[in-house]
Amino acid sequence: MTTVSRRKFLSRIGAGTALLSVPSITSLSSDFFQGEKKLNIALVGLGYYSEFKLATALQETKHCQLAGIVTGTAAKAEKWKKQYNLSEKNIYNYQTFDRIADNKAIDVVYVALPNSMHHEFVIRAAKAGKHVICEKPMAVSVKECQEMIDACNKAKVKLAIGYRLHSEPYTQEAMRVGQQQVFGKVKIVESSMGFKIGDPTQWRLKKSMAGGGAMMDVGVYAIQAARYSTGEEPLYVTAQEFKTDPVKFKEVDETIFWQLEFPSGAVANSQTTYASSMERLFISAENGWLELRPAFGYGPIKGRTSQGELNLPNVNHQAMQMDDFALCLKENRESPVNGEEGLKDLKVVEAIYKAIATGGKVKI
Amino acid sequence: MTTVSRRKFLSRIGAGTALLSVPSITSLSSDFFQGEKKLNIALVGLGYYSEFKLATALQETKHCQLAGIVTGTAAKAEKWKKQYNLSEKNIYNYQTFDRIADNKAIDVVYVALPNSMHHEFVIRAAKAGKHVICEKPMAVSVKECQEMIDACNKAKVKLAIGYRLHSEPYTQEAMRVGQQQVFGKVKIVESSMGFKIGDPTQWRLKKSMAGGGAMMDVGVYAIQAARYSTGEEPLYVTAQEFKTDPVKFKEVDETIFWQLEFPSGAVANSQTTYASSMERLFISAENGWLELRPAFGYGPIKGRTSQGELNLPNVNHQAMQMDDFALCLKENRESPVNGEEGLKDLKVVEAIYKAIATGGKVKI
Repeated sequence: MTTVSRRKFLSRIGAGTALLSVPSITSLSSDFFQGEKKLNIALVGLGYYSEFKLATALQETKHCQLAGIVTGTAAKAEKWKKQYNLSEKNIYNYQTFDRIADNKAIDVVYVALPNSMHHEFVIRAAKAGKHVICEKPMAVSVKECQEMIDACNKAKVKLAIGYRLHSEPYTQEAMRVGQQQVFGKVKIVESSMGFKIGDPTQWRLKKSMAGGGAMMDVGVYAIQAARYSTGEEPLYVTAQEFKTDPVKFKEVDETIFWQLEFPSGAVANSQTTYASSMERLFISAENGWLELRPAFGYGPIKGRTSQGELNLPNVNHQAMQMDDFALCLKENRESPVNGEEGLKDLKVVEAIYKAIATGGKVKI
Repeated sequence: MTTVSRRKFLSRIGAGTALLSVPSITSLSSDFFQGEKKLNIALVGLGYYSEFKLATALQETKHCQLAGIVTGTAAKAEKWKKQYNLSEKNIYNYQTFDRIADNKAIDVVYVALPNSMHHEFVIRAAKAGKHVICEKPMAVSVKECQEMIDACNKAKVKLAIGYRLHSEPYTQEAMRVGQQQVFGKVKIVESSMGFKIGDPTQWRLKKSMAGGGAMMDVGVYAIQAARYSTGEEPLYVTAQEFKTDPVKFKEVDETIFWQLEFPSGAVANSQTTYASSMERLFISAENGWLELRPAFGYGPIKGRTSQGELNLPNVNHQAMQMDDFALCLKENRESPVNGEEGLKDLKVVEAIYKAIATGGKVKI
């Protein structure tokens, strides 16, 4: 959509025809449609990611802003209220959260809770009539993902997964090179994402909270990357699990390698771990290659191809991601990282766990 | 061995006690032991590698020189004779080759023939009483490797495999970082080596000549790398084979991924292909990492660690490798890349093929 057509679209909305011509949009503050006011976001869960990535990014966004919070910790509520000058009526805890349905000052709920809570809070947000951004992994099972998609469809709200990299220039270049066959057909993708996990008491190491280990947490980046590098959905997977520290990783997976086969014949070899550092995307095509390294962190992403260094803008991933979602809502477009996108990754995750359990090749 | 002790050693040899005190060294031209003359090498097989890598490297070596050739093509013999001013008596064909036993002007035979011929020519060279360098892969089976080792032991000649990277500074740094646990215990190794193969009629694509495809040809680099990065021998392997072009790769493997488990718990995920370009070694340890990329080609190798860029000398790999072997002979040391080293890689190769055939985990 060009700038001109977007302006036309917005003027149509402004003329009061919005709810007829754009039936799936509900409960956006009407100011937002004037293109003057920003979309109002409430963050659910005030852990590290909300505090140091989302809240800070929301100081840089053009189309959205921090308007509310949902937290179980009264002291955090107090601190954030002061720091961001939040209105008392936009502050909720997990018990009062559903009342957000009555709050016209909140357009979007951003769920940044531990993995196992995504399902519940996305569905509650949808039932409250709010659009939702849900952190990755979307949920801990395909079944949960489908229920979340269904709930958002039923409530006519839009859902996006916190895949910030789809708004990031180096990642977009990787997609272009792979999907448009800039160096010919993609033959092999290597993708790795892992880090050495710290505090052994954190929720990421508890199966009930995280749903899985490195695979769930950062392995999804490597799955995503193989999918967007080829532009295809994988058909088959084999996988191997290793534990170099069986004590620390009693409940969840530590290190997993997996191999994906795509319809075109392209194959991916990917890895995730909580044991040590790794972070890379490599697309090897018939006549050249593209490499991002670092590839999946908060930036700066760096990249090069067989033709030389890539020099693309370094952006605030989270700010770009939230602004992109705001524009999707303005323009009544589906997010490119919608619930289906999150579900597709969980389908691969479940197939990987099955391949580990059976020791064989699994059809996805 | 220090310079002083080496000089002492050489003077002892010069005093005529060589054959008693160093019983395993035979047929070295006596001049060589004076430390003045260079070790004389005959190249067997004058393909691309001999012409553009070994012969040129032998113009830069300090401790050895090109003295003879073995070729089945009369025109090549004539061309090389003129170009390198070779003595007619040091030029053989495959039928006359065994007469090299009587030629004191040749110390070492360098076998650079197609893989399937390594076994025959290494054994013939050993029987002729010549020390041998054999290109990688050492042979097309573990059984052949063992027979080659046995033949060299019986003939009291030394055998080295053409693993030039053991003489290369970046590779030596990777070995040091991994084996001396500079960044703590090695957790995960990634190693990839592959290229897009050209001419579909070449011997590398014929099973009878090559013994296998990318795995045999360049996959051994990735196996080697996992072994020298950990300093361990792998216990188990899983592997997956893919053919993105089943017509071109009718006889031999195109793309193989494999996973190795080491006694310490370290794991490796490796890849080889003839479909497209890839070349990298990554060692991920508890507290840091080392990456070489390019890692296995003829140079310049480049590298960095979690602490920054590596700035090591770029050397002529083949010249270093042959000089190192010459010094092993002078000092009566076993080469660090002896026949056992080649056999260990073939053991992994055979286990990889078995893992592909069975679809399961194979004990190495």
